Amino acid sequence: MLKPESYQAGRWIGPGMAAQVLRSPVTGEEIAQAGSAIDAQAMLDHGRGVGGPALRALGFHDRARMLKALGQYLDARKEALYALNPLTGATRRDGWIDIDGGILTLFAFASKGRREMPDGQVYLDGGAEGLSRDGDFIGQHIATPLRGVGVHINAFNFPVWGMLEKLAPCLLAGVPAIVKPATQTSFLAEAAFRMIVESGILPEGAVQLIVGGTGDLLDRLGAQDVVSFTGSAQTALKLRQNPALVRNSTRFIAEQDSLNAAILGADATPDSVEFSLFVKEAVAEITTKAGQKCTAMRRLLVPAPRADTVTEALVEALRKVPVGDPADKAVRMGALVSLAQKRDVLEKAARIGAEARRVTGDPDRFDLLGADPAQAFLPPMLFRCDDPDAARALHEVEAFGPVSTVMPYRDAAHAAALVNRGGGSLVASLFSHDPDFARTVALETAAWHGRLYLNDRDSAAGATGHGAPLPMLVHGGPGRAGGGEEMGGIRGVMHYMQRTAVQGSPRMIAALTGQWAPGAPEVKGPEHPFRRSFEDLQIGETLWTGSRTITLEDIEHFAHFTGDTFYAHMDQAAAEANPFFPGRVAHGYLLLSFAAGLFVQPDPGPVLANTGLNGLAFKKPVSPGDAIRVRLTCARKTRRTGEYGEVAWAVLLVNQDAEPVAEYELLTMVSYRG
Amino acid sequence: MLKPESYQAGRWIGPGMAAQVLRSPVTGEEIAQAGSAIDAQAMLDHGRGVGGPALRALGFHDRARMLKALGQYLDARKEALYALNPLTGATRRDGWIDIDGGILTLFAFASKGRREMPDGQVYLDGGAEGLSRDGDFIGQHIATPLRGVGVHINAFNFPVWGMLEKLAPCLLAGVPAIVKPATQTSFLAEAAFRMIVESGILPEGAVQLIVGGTGDLLDRLGAQDVVSFTGSAQTALKLRQNPALVRNSTRFIAEQDSLNAAILGADATPDSVEFSLFVKEAVAEITTKAGQKCTAMRRLLVPAPRADTVTEALVEALRKVPVGDPADKAVRMGALVSLAQKRDVLEKAARIGAEARRVTGDPDRFDLLGADPAQAFLPPMLFRCDDPDAARALHEVEAFGPVSTVMPYRDAAHAAALVNRGGGSLVASLFSHDPDFARTVALETAAWHGRLYLNDRDSAAGATGHGAPLPMLVHGGPGRAGGGEEMGGIRGVMHYMQRTAVQGSPRMIAALTGQWAPGAPEVKGPEHPFRRSFEDLQIGETLWTGSRTITLEDIEHFAHFTGDTFYAHMDQAAAEANPFFPGRVAHGYLLLSFAAGLFVQPDPGPVLANTGLNGLAFKKPVSPGDAIRVRLTCARKTRRTGEYGEVAWAVLLVNQDAEPVAEYELLTMVSYRG
Repeated sequence: MLKPESYQAGRWIGPGMAAQVLRSPVTGEEIAQAGSAIDAQAMLDHGRGVGGPALRALGFHDRARMLKALGQYLDARKEALYALNPLTGATRRDGWIDIDGGILTLFAFASKGRREMPDGQVYLDGGAEGLSRDGDFIGQHIATPLRGVGVHINAFNFPVWGMLEKLAPCLLAGVPAIVKPATQTSFLAEAAFRMIVESGILPEGAVQLIVGGTGDLLDRLGAQDVVSFTGSAQTALKLRQNPALVRNSTRFIAEQDSLNAAILGADATPDSVEFSLFVKEAVAEITTKAGQKCTAMRRLLVPAPRADTVTEALVEALRKVPVGDPADKAVRMGALVSLAQKRDVLEKAARIGAEARRVTGDPDRFDLLGADPAQAFLPPMLFRCDDPDAARALHEVEAFGPVSTVMPYRDAAHAAALVNRGGGSLVASLFSHDPDFARTVALETAAWHGRLYLNDRDSAAGATGHGAPLPMLVHGGPGRAGGGEEMGGIRGVMHYMQRTAVQGSPRMIAALTGQWAPGAPEVKGPEHPFRRSFEDLQIGETLWTGSRTITLEDIEHFAHFTGDTFYAHMDQAAAEANPFFPGRVAHGYLLLSFAAGLFVQPDPGPVLANTGLNGLAFKKPVSPGDAIRVRLTCARKTRRTGEYGEVAWAVLLVNQDAEPVAEYELLTMVSYRG
Repeated sequence: MLKPESYQAGRWIGPGMAAQVLRSPVTGEEIAQAGSAIDAQAMLDHGRGVGGPALRALGFHDRARMLKALGQYLDARKEALYALNPLTGATRRDGWIDIDGGILTLFAFASKGRREMPDGQVYLDGGAEGLSRDGDFIGQHIATPLRGVGVHINAFNFPVWGMLEKLAPCLLAGVPAIVKPATQTSFLAEAAFRMIVESGILPEGAVQLIVGGTGDLLDRLGAQDVVSFTGSAQTALKLRQNPALVRNSTRFIAEQDSLNAAILGADATPDSVEFSLFVKEAVAEITTKAGQKCTAMRRLLVPAPRADTVTEALVEALRKVPVGDPADKAVRMGALVSLAQKRDVLEKAARIGAEARRVTGDPDRFDLLGADPAQAFLPPMLFRCDDPDAARALHEVEAFGPVSTVMPYRDAAHAAALVNRGGGSLVASLFSHDPDFARTVALETAAWHGRLYLNDRDSAAGATGHGAPLPMLVHGGPGRAGGGEEMGGIRGVMHYMQRTAVQGSPRMIAALTGQWAPGAPEVKGPEHPFRRSFEDLQIGETLWTGSRTITLEDIEHFAHFTGDTFYAHMDQAAAEANPFFPGRVAHGYLLLSFAAGLFVQPDPGPVLANTGLNGLAFKKPVSPGDAIRVRLTCARKTRRTGEYGEVAWAVLLVNQDAEPVAEYELLTMVSYRG
């Protein structure tokens, strides 16, 4: 008998008086007791008072490294999780999405955090905005961690992934979490959570766990807390009306199951790659996790003339899917999570059955490998509705199991209208090789969806699957799907941070962000900045080079040497006729090259390489006889490896009248001290 | 007697049976009758069915041009609005914020739309994400207009600005609006709205107006609609619980009045610039618009040792502010908007008075220029509280009028803690020249604020004012301030669009976005792409150049010519010791220059100039003997002026083994056809 425990303020709490007995969906045996009596205020105090400050003391990169270490720790121990997985009704393949999928999400956020966030505590959202004519007052949006906790209310279907996909952005932001898994599969979530705690990688208070009910937790949340909910629309509706949440404008991210659709393109003939992809993915969506996926295809839209062919192909494929004991390797579809869930699916399927006819999957008579049909098993059930415009339940009622419906459409507009009848979905997909059809359908349906998945012969090898939310893409959808967004790379991290517009002098903004801004003080270093190690370089450290006059000979020489004999450099009359040039001018790349010549240090030193540049803008043409000099300022530093880090330099080229002629950000790798 | 009308489905509707009589806050005379009987469903049908499709048929740039034209139209007629302005109790100066401020907001969004959004119908949010090893499957976040309406519920204090600051991002997104101004000042909003309609600039159905109650409008909103509310916390609380909004996850943006604070830095001596700025801005915040500003400073935090000095300076300055008839040019502070508002302020001031003593502004005895004290006038009222930790009302109760309270703090941490007691504010400000103090306070308070305003001697000339929301910066705040965000440039436009993650082959993604993506088909044009006009160039049109071998002589020659004799180019042994290089390598700028030489067209043609480049990344070093060639692909086109537009080219340099050595986006200006 498993006894998953809650984790409150550093202490494990076993099942209490109100604990529920959980039964195996496969055998009906009692497998666990779950539900602890927790003290919600103590958890909030611990998260806000201990976990938050400890996480905020770290920077984004420190926290990203923690996520990576956690992923490695779990990866090394994942077989213990796979051992529990069949008790949820899931096959090993289903478990891969949950367990390996969850670990990969940690790695993805670790990598995004290192690559796309600064090596510090303030995230910059967008560029600086000039707010005054003279540049003495600028604006910059920053993001800083919220001061509360993330309350993660997770669904039963992916106990590990569901936990990790929310923990990753929350912890990366610097916000502690209280995780509340669905009770039915809480033993698996708890096993993964216990590894996280035992790893010792996270600071005290960063994560807590509630197995069972949350008590009055939600009533105690405030303006700095975040609720991230995954589950049914009904539960979300109830929770989001909680008076404390409404009164405090508490962020509430809802990700609800939805009536996701898949469209077979009008161009897809039965022998086309797109046709096969459609059938293959539809079968996978209906049967994976016994259809208990918030992204599963519930509505299959096919061109009217192909409705029969598609239906036949699907029926044939679905009948071949072996259903049974998920621990049996021959089995492709296991059990639903519980008998209660099975009853719910049958009730919803009956409502769908009132509008569509069932073409395969009799729940009362189907083959089952090594298992008891009285337990939580169902066959893949496919319906067919020939008048989807008249249907209502089909577009509103979700049977959260291995259930889907084929419906015909007339043309792109009709297909889009039917898709949108779902009232907002997590994902819709389109299997077509026709870009015009795809564009029409996509632009008509995008506003109703958090994700659009297009697959065709060109992408078949690399496509990640209709049902797979990815850490770098937004997961969520409007309306029926809850209106929330999760993941999407740094977008998901922002859900746990406050965006603040900061206004001030460049000096003050630089002090806040830790990055130099044009107009901020130029710091004079003790020697050439290229001779300074990564650690020694100060933000704002600036070199003004000597000047170099550009001659007509330089321009002609450069033109013939490089082959760039564009008339603006070579022909006075033609150049004068050009709206941008006063006459013959220097090549832009000549200026960049001479600038490098002015600031480069020839001998080996800390600067190892120029790796690129950003945002080069030519501001004013340089004519023969003009002299340029360069301002080179250390703007930003980011540790990268054990040996060196990236230094971004703000580079400004001015002419003899101190007018800017070019501006860019130069990227270099600079080694650490000694 | 003014009779502001509603505008429903292209028809003006005058005051109905339930119309309210509005009285002048200055004289008490009846000035207007306001309140029409509207048909909410008819308005929604018109907006969604007529206005939405018409707006969506345009692109972002078309809509941006519309906003600019609207701004010009209003600007030419604004004196008619200024004529009505005193009837709201406001002085001409107050009116500037409302009327000119609103028009400037239109211009700002017009400019942002042209500069930061594509010349088409799909906005790209962030860059492409590689989703497969081979690059055959990529992800791209896009944003498309919501299919519903924006319902704008505005506050009484800025009838014109409040309308325009919401209309600008909404229309730019491509979403029609239904505007509901506060009834008390609806006549001024209506006058500006009527000009918008009469201008004929907007398509039919793009805007509608409700003067008076909204009836059952909110009950009829769905998943694709947006409510943007400005007003009191109580009203917001009531509206956001509307069952239709909750059930449909309808976006609800709330911007509520809040207990904004201003801090005088510990470093600011009485003779400092920062001290003067603090006093000057505090006086302006208390008296502008008679303190009826959601951003006004309600709590003035000063270092304990300076509390008396600051209080005295404020009292002295506030006593000098002439209060009276807003039409009188000598008057600096006019009336509150209504007698009801005056009563409310006095009631709240009494609650503040229970925790703080009033140091100036006796509402029963004050000088008034040319007006009747029985009407909606109050003097600037300043309170002083010496124990702000013990106070509650001070941090929770907002007197929405010329009322503020001075309170002492001990140190930066104490100041930050007091500021955060507001439970979430639109803005906090800090007057300090000490970057360490500013950083400490800012990072401790940022998570509670939508905006932080730092002013000091360096920014004094350019600073835009504590109380001024700016179109390019986010306006809104967490918790008590409503949790919403408005404006912030394109961020504000996104509130009216759905973000969708699109996955597919590069060819499909390019078809959707209208921009070329690496891996999408390379189109062969009829001639060199630099000889093609802006209109003729197709997205994806590609040139592969011939190849050029880089010799050691080239490298040495370039080094001596430019002065860039970095050892990685000149010294084999030293270069080999560098972790990035196999030995001597070519300069990055040599590669860029030779690349230009390979693709440039010398004679005059459509390509006018190279204006810059983005995202240059060096991928692999080029050794002597290597040969490079260049792929140049038309990736993106944006009309700019009447003569030319910007073409962005995806440029890839490969070596003789077809390995990428450098990649960047080249920006050029290309002229239109003949």
